Amino acid sequence: MQSTDLREHNLSVVLRSLVASSEPASRAAIAKATRLTKPTVSKLVEELVGAGLVQEGSPQVRGTGRPIVPLSPAQGTLVALGLEVAADHISCLAVDLAGREVSQHTEYLHVTARSVDAAVDRSARLIAAARTAAGAVPTVGICVALPGRISPDGSRVLSAPNLGWTDVPFVERLAAHPLLDGLPVRAQNDNRLAVNTELDRRPGASFLYVRGSTGVGGAIVLEGSVLDGQHGWAGEIGHTVIEQGGARCRCGRRGCLEAYVSYHALRERAGLSEDVLIEDLVDALALSTDRAEVIGTIGRSLGLAIANALNVLDLSTVVLSGYLAPIAEEISPVVRATVEAHALAVEAGPVTIERSDGLADPSLRGAARAALDPVLTSPGTWIRQHV
Amino acid sequence: MQSTDLREHNLSVVLRSLVASSEPASRAAIAKATRLTKPTVSKLVEELVGAGLVQEGSPQVRGTGRPIVPLSPAQGTLVALGLEVAADHISCLAVDLAGREVSQHTEYLHVTARSVDAAVDRSARLIAAARTAAGAVPTVGICVALPGRISPDGSRVLSAPNLGWTDVPFVERLAAHPLLDGLPVRAQNDNRLAVNTELDRRPGASFLYVRGSTGVGGAIVLEGSVLDGQHGWAGEIGHTVIEQGGARCRCGRRGCLEAYVSYHALRERAGLSEDVLIEDLVDALALSTDRAEVIGTIGRSLGLAIANALNVLDLSTVVLSGYLAPIAEEISPVVRATVEAHALAVEAGPVTIERSDGLADPSLRGAARAALDPVLTSPGTWIRQHV
Repeated sequence: MQSTDLREHNLSVVLRSLVASSEPASRAAIAKATRLTKPTVSKLVEELVGAGLVQEGSPQVRGTGRPIVPLSPAQGTLVALGLEVAADHISCLAVDLAGREVSQHTEYLHVTARSVDAAVDRSARLIAAARTAAGAVPTVGICVALPGRISPDGSRVLSAPNLGWTDVPFVERLAAHPLLDGLPVRAQNDNRLAVNTELDRRPGASFLYVRGSTGVGGAIVLEGSVLDGQHGWAGEIGHTVIEQGGARCRCGRRGCLEAYVSYHALRERAGLSEDVLIEDLVDALALSTDRAEVIGTIGRSLGLAIANALNVLDLSTVVLSGYLAPIAEEISPVVRATVEAHALAVEAGPVTIERSDGLADPSLRGAARAALDPVLTSPGTWIRQHV
Repeated sequence: MQSTDLREHNLSVVLRSLVASSEPASRAAIAKATRLTKPTVSKLVEELVGAGLVQEGSPQVRGTGRPIVPLSPAQGTLVALGLEVAADHISCLAVDLAGREVSQHTEYLHVTARSVDAAVDRSARLIAAARTAAGAVPTVGICVALPGRISPDGSRVLSAPNLGWTDVPFVERLAAHPLLDGLPVRAQNDNRLAVNTELDRRPGASFLYVRGSTGVGGAIVLEGSVLDGQHGWAGEIGHTVIEQGGARCRCGRRGCLEAYVSYHALRERAGLSEDVLIEDLVDALALSTDRAEVIGTIGRSLGLAIANALNVLDLSTVVLSGYLAPIAEEISPVVRATVEAHALAVEAGPVTIERSDGLADPSLRGAARAALDPVLTSPGTWIRQHV
């Protein structure tokens, strides 16, 4: 490694260790965690503090030793933006390096094939609003959470059936919008971003993550890492065929899980209007007279798709998220019965069905967190360009 | 590492590099491949040659340099035994360290819940026959390929539906048989052993391996490594539900892929007698008047299960093996049509459907190869005990 590469690498290691730590850490603790020498850590920390990426707390005196200075990621010195494009709204969340949520702006609109222009424009305005709210603080970049499959190079939305999008160059168009002023934009599948919020809660765990939102998707976590797959689409449980030649899915195929339990499918099945928001879906379903039938359909359909995924992957833990989380208790008996009827894992012990942390907007929060990546990976480059 | 541990580790590294190499290698080539120094390699090779684990070929003179002595794994100095227990036969294959097949013994019998005693006894006799054929040469141990799920500790067959076995302590019972004379026995799922023969042909590749034999199973290979899963069962595609409430599977569940395309299911569907062997199934099906229907059923059922697995894993290559390999060309159009109708991967490019290397008995060969593991992992221990 060149010495500049090594310095960049070490700056990144120190900064990431502070971001990953749940509590402020001393220079000595960082040295221990990163296996760097104390003098090296001191030098790197000095640079990061000077650049406003790390902040020092009040020195703490313990016993007769030298006072310990607690270090943590800096608050309020930069923002990274997460943007979520869903069927019924677009949101923009600004976070700082400490993970604090600085601002959130949301606009409600129906995002469809016909409204791509509007979606680009509203997104650009939300981003501009977030930057205005952040004042003079620099912006790292934008990560967009989208309910569909992104091309492996990150430039195009190949298909987002619940938005009616096929091969839409959303990232390019948003990046080229005058209001963005050249800010870098990248996109990722919404469920793969949402699962990030579960990784911290379950370090090293292996589980199938299933999230109901605009569509139904998920992620596969093996020993604490999200499985990528060949195109970055692993975990797409929404298009598991649960009934050959069954209901028509928005993706054009037949019998997909999403044709039974997505926002659109549930809304139509329960006879609810287009104005019901995803976040209100469960409450709206509760008012419907066919509640038991709806819950049964969700539970059985999900259970079958989950059993098939568990069998192929040999997993025995499922985490339900999105609109599935608040109804997890209600649908669990049906899901469990279906899973136990079909999953091989029960031969070795029980299958665990859990709910996600239940915090709102996991995709949006995951996107904002992912938007911090460039500064965490290359703090030296950030410092050269912005400090 | 202790110095004895280090020596054991280095002996293993040198021996494995020779076993992995397709051609004999010089001491210098081993040093380069293993990143050990030439003097260290020379010392280790000397010990391995002395113990009969490595053999030297005729020195080759190239140019004016010193003659090069080609090294390869020793032939005929030990045997490792693979045993395959299938619905219609039990086979035992002895291989030496060079991978040469030294002997193969097969007995045809119907293995069922009632014939566990007979299966243990026949297995022990086949093993004894293989050892007798090997003469004075020592035996490393036995790896058993079984068409079912093995308990994670390797001691019990939790379920092998196509043998009618539930919770059978086959490994313990075989190991305790007087004819085995204390030889170590372990067991693994037949498909996970069979896939080993594909790993060499496709270094670093990612693919879904699907094998038709007594049952229908498979393995998931990610960048050249077989995915384990939580119990060592990943890749169990045979119990993907392809029809809710569909045909009764031998596992007791309904609608599993195996209920449509396993040996038993195909034999029964085509009205063939119990005496048809797995290896003759395709020919026997060819004589049936319902060939087109049988091929259609196999193709559509497989295609659906494959599409679901590809979607969740985000893979785009499938390798068909077992009795599926010889009919791969015939079923491919139907499999492909079904996969393309349901797999998301087609949005990024074509799905590749290939056939396995077509050599007979991949599970048996994989088991024999796996039985060599103890001597490859701990050559020093082997030398102390047997030389």
